[in-house]
Amino acid sequence: MGSQEAASVADMMTALGERARASAHALGLASTDAKNRALAAAAAALRARGAQIVEANARDMDAAAKAGVTKANLDRLMLDARRVESMATGVDDIAALPDPVGRVLATFERPNGLKIERVATPLGVIGVIYESRPNVTADAGALCLKAGNAAILRGGSDSFHSSTIIHQCLVEGLRAANLPEAAIQLVPTRDRAAVGEMLKGLGGNLDVIVPRGGKSLVARVQEEARVPVFAHLEGIVHVYVDAAADLDMARAIVRNAKLRRTGVCGAAETLLVDRAVERTHLAPLVKLLLDEGCEVRGDAAVRGVDPRVAAAHDADWSTEYLDAVISAKVVDGLDAAMDHIERYGSHHTDCIVTQDSGRAERFLREVDSAIVLHNASTQFADGGEFGFGAEIGIATGRMHARGPVGLEQLTSFKYRVRGAGQVRP
Amino acid sequence: MGSQEAASVADMMTALGERARASAHALGLASTDAKNRALAAAAAALRARGAQIVEANARDMDAAAKAGVTKANLDRLMLDARRVESMATGVDDIAALPDPVGRVLATFERPNGLKIERVATPLGVIGVIYESRPNVTADAGALCLKAGNAAILRGGSDSFHSSTIIHQCLVEGLRAANLPEAAIQLVPTRDRAAVGEMLKGLGGNLDVIVPRGGKSLVARVQEEARVPVFAHLEGIVHVYVDAAADLDMARAIVRNAKLRRTGVCGAAETLLVDRAVERTHLAPLVKLLLDEGCEVRGDAAVRGVDPRVAAAHDADWSTEYLDAVISAKVVDGLDAAMDHIERYGSHHTDCIVTQDSGRAERFLREVDSAIVLHNASTQFADGGEFGFGAEIGIATGRMHARGPVGLEQLTSFKYRVRGAGQVRP
Repeated sequence: MGSQEAASVADMMTALGERARASAHALGLASTDAKNRALAAAAAALRARGAQIVEANARDMDAAAKAGVTKANLDRLMLDARRVESMATGVDDIAALPDPVGRVLATFERPNGLKIERVATPLGVIGVIYESRPNVTADAGALCLKAGNAAILRGGSDSFHSSTIIHQCLVEGLRAANLPEAAIQLVPTRDRAAVGEMLKGLGGNLDVIVPRGGKSLVARVQEEARVPVFAHLEGIVHVYVDAAADLDMARAIVRNAKLRRTGVCGAAETLLVDRAVERTHLAPLVKLLLDEGCEVRGDAAVRGVDPRVAAAHDADWSTEYLDAVISAKVVDGLDAAMDHIERYGSHHTDCIVTQDSGRAERFLREVDSAIVLHNASTQFADGGEFGFGAEIGIATGRMHARGPVGLEQLTSFKYRVRGAGQVRP
Repeated sequence: MGSQEAASVADMMTALGERARASAHALGLASTDAKNRALAAAAAALRARGAQIVEANARDMDAAAKAGVTKANLDRLMLDARRVESMATGVDDIAALPDPVGRVLATFERPNGLKIERVATPLGVIGVIYESRPNVTADAGALCLKAGNAAILRGGSDSFHSSTIIHQCLVEGLRAANLPEAAIQLVPTRDRAAVGEMLKGLGGNLDVIVPRGGKSLVARVQEEARVPVFAHLEGIVHVYVDAAADLDMARAIVRNAKLRRTGVCGAAETLLVDRAVERTHLAPLVKLLLDEGCEVRGDAAVRGVDPRVAAAHDADWSTEYLDAVISAKVVDGLDAAMDHIERYGSHHTDCIVTQDSGRAERFLREVDSAIVLHNASTQFADGGEFGFGAEIGIATGRMHARGPVGLEQLTSFKYRVRGAGQVRP
């Protein structure tokens, strides 16, 4: 790429950022009704232009197949009538969620009579950088809009044609509700320099970036972004089966946590079993996993229960398999389990299975992960399952958003103070 | 500075970061009682070593006087017995505040019986970079500790001797409560390279930076920091006197907002008066300010009411005087006032004086500042006045903390999920 093209991408992205910022104020003040009308009209447009979307997607699929994209990624990229309908339904669902803007988060009255309210406001401009799934265009655009934020969407180059038409449907929605069209912008180039510009923050016109995609995308964004990032790099998720675990419950939770879906961030990657129940609980759990086709990589104790168990190497304890593979280890009680999680975990989601409420409470208190569970599957790590209605991702950072990032986490706040002429002594 | 020295500062700061992170876990789990005992013991140590602190401060003052430090900065640097006592009282006051860690921020139960709690946790490691006032050492260290965070304090080089002894008192407190000494660390060098290392984030061992000092310090930190920053660059604070303002109330608020203390960030810098009350309200307000020794820089309308008014230039509308100077302008009603604030303001604190509740509510809703006030002085922009007990600063960013940053804003959260064996369908 020549320096002239680089300059033109930089200029284009600057202009995108400025348009987003200019629209953010009006968007932040938009009524719930206007935002919902825009979402309903966008959903209608997605349905009306379904055939066109599928046709554009076919062009993306052809190009991707020729470029040798993996089968898994082709499936992520693919849109058919059913998937378009599911996208439209998703937008309708977001319209049905309560408006997070304007919520009164706290109220207090001071001895001098000042009445102070903390009220939710939008964050401003949200950048979303994603990979092959074109449905993120609709999903992320709708979530940002409902929370009163302007969105700058940078889809995968694979899904360029699909995302372009989906984006047009969102703009139709904005237009129908008289909201600024720049409220949801799609980066109109496949040039990768655009991502670099977003990471630099578009001259102060980008308030947060949400990367949605594989580990290498997230790692790059976390490393290079000059603005806050809502994301998790990986989910090294643990299930600890305590001495006081009910074996049947442990079976159900371990099976579900590992195998319900292996490719999600809340899928368990490591099983820890208390040495106190090595004789009773270890073999049934390990054999269950093996029998269901899961590869088990274990320490010496785990290898002792079944010849099918492979040896775990040190790297296994910090590997997110996202596949039907699990590492397993016998530990000396709760403290050893928590030490292991602190050392190898990713502060995403961790679970204890036990009937001992004292140890359960210690685990819930002491394990420093965004989500800690007692006697429930780690696959509940999901905004929908938390009742957030939808999520834009799961964050493991400690700032602002942590765990599932739903509409509420896409807002900030301000203080409103009502007085009767008070001055400060 | 040679590259060897640079390397040694970098190594030292890395070690500081690692020690902070290593202590943060224990600190996050420390009981309220232990934290309060540490604070009480630190306050006692400050009192016991008061003479030593004043003596060390005298050395700092001598060096600063020789270096030609301004009188205002010398006053900021100075500690006497009264100021040491006020520092100790400040630490006692922080001990008396409720513990922000472990607060249950939200609870919800899902249809499947999962009980989910959002619980406050510490942020982790907080870096504080400050200038001459050595009392920040005690104040910031105590606030970070109470919120369960490890602190890395980088004081001004002017106050090196004073801060070193104050820090020793804090460490005595930690020791008395069996808390890790690395919970509050003072950067043990005046080398400015240490600040650069903090801005780079100490290899992931710094979660947030709070700069406390002048505009150039804050600007550098905001520009260069690779970690989140809680700060405001400036407070371009407006008082808008609406058509329906009570003149006596406007007088009291304008006088207090501008002149109670002119050097604080909540001091008013611009007076906007609705053209509808130009004849009745403008002259009394302008003359009041002039009579109290405040310089007024105005547009043509304002200049018309008194020959002492100087001409306002465009730069005046975006200048934070922090002095007995105010810019003043007549505007065409509420919308023009809000446009002016949006264009020239700094999203810090803005006020409307009016008896018209409709316009007051519009102002409170539409002005996008951390603090918006109706009929009250802007000098209430302060954590203590908000009832937060203490503040580490005021933030104008939209992420995580906004407005006064008190103990609650120095925490993050996590989700605790309690189940009875639930697995995800």
